[in-house]
Amino acid sequence: MYKSEQLAQQIRQQIENGSWHAHDKLPSLREQVQLSGFSLITVMNAYQELEAQGLVYAKEKSGYFVAEQIQSKLLDHASIVSLNSKVEINSLVFQYLKSTQSPSILPLGSAFPDSQLLYTPKLLQIMGQHARHRLSYDQVGSLPPGNFALRQLIAQRYRMQGIPTDADDIVITSGCLDALNLALQTVAKAGDYILLQQTIFYGAWQAAERLGLKVITIPEHPKYGFDLDAFTKVLKTYPIKVCWLMLNSHNPIGFTVSDEIKYEIAKLLHEYQIYLIEDDVYEEMYYGGKKPLPMKYFDQQNLVLHCSSFSKTLGAGFRVGWVYAGKFSNHIQHLQLMSTISVNALVQHALVDFLSSHHYEKHLRSLRLMLERCKKQFYQFFKQNLPAECEVYYYPSGYFLWLKLPKNMNSMHIYEQLLQQNISVAPSPLFNVLELQQHFLRVNCSFEWSDQIEMAMNTLIACIRQNHTSTLKTINE
Amino acid sequence: MYKSEQLAQQIRQQIENGSWHAHDKLPSLREQVQLSGFSLITVMNAYQELEAQGLVYAKEKSGYFVAEQIQSKLLDHASIVSLNSKVEINSLVFQYLKSTQSPSILPLGSAFPDSQLLYTPKLLQIMGQHARHRLSYDQVGSLPPGNFALRQLIAQRYRMQGIPTDADDIVITSGCLDALNLALQTVAKAGDYILLQQTIFYGAWQAAERLGLKVITIPEHPKYGFDLDAFTKVLKTYPIKVCWLMLNSHNPIGFTVSDEIKYEIAKLLHEYQIYLIEDDVYEEMYYGGKKPLPMKYFDQQNLVLHCSSFSKTLGAGFRVGWVYAGKFSNHIQHLQLMSTISVNALVQHALVDFLSSHHYEKHLRSLRLMLERCKKQFYQFFKQNLPAECEVYYYPSGYFLWLKLPKNMNSMHIYEQLLQQNISVAPSPLFNVLELQQHFLRVNCSFEWSDQIEMAMNTLIACIRQNHTSTLKTINE
Repeated sequence: MYKSEQLAQQIRQQIENGSWHAHDKLPSLREQVQLSGFSLITVMNAYQELEAQGLVYAKEKSGYFVAEQIQSKLLDHASIVSLNSKVEINSLVFQYLKSTQSPSILPLGSAFPDSQLLYTPKLLQIMGQHARHRLSYDQVGSLPPGNFALRQLIAQRYRMQGIPTDADDIVITSGCLDALNLALQTVAKAGDYILLQQTIFYGAWQAAERLGLKVITIPEHPKYGFDLDAFTKVLKTYPIKVCWLMLNSHNPIGFTVSDEIKYEIAKLLHEYQIYLIEDDVYEEMYYGGKKPLPMKYFDQQNLVLHCSSFSKTLGAGFRVGWVYAGKFSNHIQHLQLMSTISVNALVQHALVDFLSSHHYEKHLRSLRLMLERCKKQFYQFFKQNLPAECEVYYYPSGYFLWLKLPKNMNSMHIYEQLLQQNISVAPSPLFNVLELQQHFLRVNCSFEWSDQIEMAMNTLIACIRQNHTSTLKTINE
Repeated sequence: MYKSEQLAQQIRQQIENGSWHAHDKLPSLREQVQLSGFSLITVMNAYQELEAQGLVYAKEKSGYFVAEQIQSKLLDHASIVSLNSKVEINSLVFQYLKSTQSPSILPLGSAFPDSQLLYTPKLLQIMGQHARHRLSYDQVGSLPPGNFALRQLIAQRYRMQGIPTDADDIVITSGCLDALNLALQTVAKAGDYILLQQTIFYGAWQAAERLGLKVITIPEHPKYGFDLDAFTKVLKTYPIKVCWLMLNSHNPIGFTVSDEIKYEIAKLLHEYQIYLIEDDVYEEMYYGGKKPLPMKYFDQQNLVLHCSSFSKTLGAGFRVGWVYAGKFSNHIQHLQLMSTISVNALVQHALVDFLSSHHYEKHLRSLRLMLERCKKQFYQFFKQNLPAECEVYYYPSGYFLWLKLPKNMNSMHIYEQLLQQNISVAPSPLFNVLELQQHFLRVNCSFEWSDQIEMAMNTLIACIRQNHTSTLKTINE
């Protein structure tokens, strides 16, 4: 073990056993040299390592301070994550979402496709027609579980994949996150164990935190996306009540899990009687000819609550999602009537018209082609320009690329530096609370290649190279 | 004390001390005669009294069963209400909301004005124009805290009442209930004490329940609406963290509290440093020349979170409300980004146009006149046709009348019987969990008088008379 690692470990232990509290100032570099007997370089490296792991943070001209801790315990094949610090992940997500909000920012960190690809003329025409009619606003027909015709059309799409569904199984929600939260509240209560993928949409962390759930994570399988072994072991060891998984066009990584593995997951869910909150919001973003099956397809016992929305295919401004609630429909409607009451009536009406025409399928087909083309262009650019130590995860679906930076690099720094230059990206601490996974970036590749994009990408590359060089320098010093 | 009251009290005590559990069958009438030594009539009266109080329920041909209890302890000037039965009030509200959902039901139980009075042609025209433009759907500008121009317009309306406000104080929400819930979550956590009015919009009960708050209620003052004495005593006795009050056009009763009392309430809030969630969703529904002041006007210390919406003035289908969040804006935005993410962008854009024209004020003026005219007509009808033992609470604002039925009558029965005849009304157990307040009804009077309305009102009167007669018969038997 390097001396710097040794020192870092000492300090980490002190933080973990409570000798240091959040926002305490660590001894200055020189004080630490005296205290520890290590050289200045060693102390500097140790502090920087702790910073890269998110355990401490640096304030300019003031020194290093202890960060609020999200404690995690690594197990054999899984991690127990105690979300002690309610503030940290929420503040990070908040800051990140705010940062993508200014019109002057190029939103490569956004989770939504370029809005130029959405809001088709036909859809807007239909919206315009409906908006003029009083009846389109009728709240009675739009109250939970939502517009009947819209639920019929959604049910029909499930049936097209061989999943027996009727309108009564569906509840319309205010977007997919609302669907996911409602579904989770329905099957889990404070103190229950939830299993998450180690890297997952931050909404899952926030929901687990808010409901007071105990979180167990399993790592992604490097080849198959999903690690069945780890999953089985956790189910054997912990009384898991519910899982929250994304298996198609995983956000942020991008993989789609095979049908064989999904089948095995379903078998295990049935064996252990565990609920699954299935986030399938990118379900339509496949490039091949066949839409990937959701876990709902393999579910014989109403354990899967499948959630999706029109935010990625038609536009996030509509705020319309849904959950395949099945027997939980009433429970979910209860929760809605206590919070948002109902989803916008006009939008529900207009979507019925649009979805029942051939325009929706036509739009989806061209959207997929556009996304594939754009993402390939971004991928080519990264392959040609990223430092050799970086890796790009390319999967044939969705519109994200997941970049692996050199291990010592902290994606938060990249994120902050790029923001100064009006470019947003999504750093891995948004999706993963483990300290060893802070060197990934999600890039939104749904934008048509242009001079502006190329300039931004060059800035991104330069930023990575610069951080890489300075990291190397520090290590070799 | 009547013998029947004596027996009822015995049984009530047995229920309260846990000798009987929810859904236990009480001894049959004849068994109870033998057990208690009272006459059959006495036992019948006692059972019916317990039923009227909601403590037991009758199943046809099976006898009487113990209801799930919402225990309440009456204090000198207040009540501690423990919301043990999470199911009961939610199920009732759910059933009630569902019952108003069918288009074949005349919604005299609805909380919304007749939709014929809303959705003005000008507003629909503006909606139609915006709906055709891609930019109207831009989510970036509509993310929390919401559309800037819309927040400016709302802020301006506060300033018109002499409340210093700017756009940054306002957060746009998915309707008023969303605003109220977000505001409450921001200042209260499980275990905190909340003070509610004894009779209040059911959303307050549900929110308190969900957050695990301890509820203290104070009764309405028969003359002034708000009982300052009771309020002061409770603040002295309990560590109240937050109040949730409605002081303008109170739902369901209808009163508006005077400025003098509001001033005193504000003084007490400041003295005890207590937050107030102010539900002011009927603020525009005044009949006189002057809009009543909200509590926010008297608040010097950012303790009041004032909530309202456009649901009652423009249409519930829009799902746009707001909270005067002030320094809590960031916290509330955090919560939004974890749940609904944002409010429909199109509607926010269109409302900016409508509100900044003269059309909004013009619409409000004619809406107020219409509501006043309709409500007076309903009031006249009730005065002429209700049994003398009933009372109608008429206040010059809003569009509800609050009917007090004879004490032995259970408004749930009236509600259920009218529903059979396709008429909904809102029974008092929706708004009040105390067993002694089950004989009130809220009637929505926003409908233009017509043959259909007159027929429905005659049905309502007949139903009340019939129940009254049968109650009298039972008593005299």
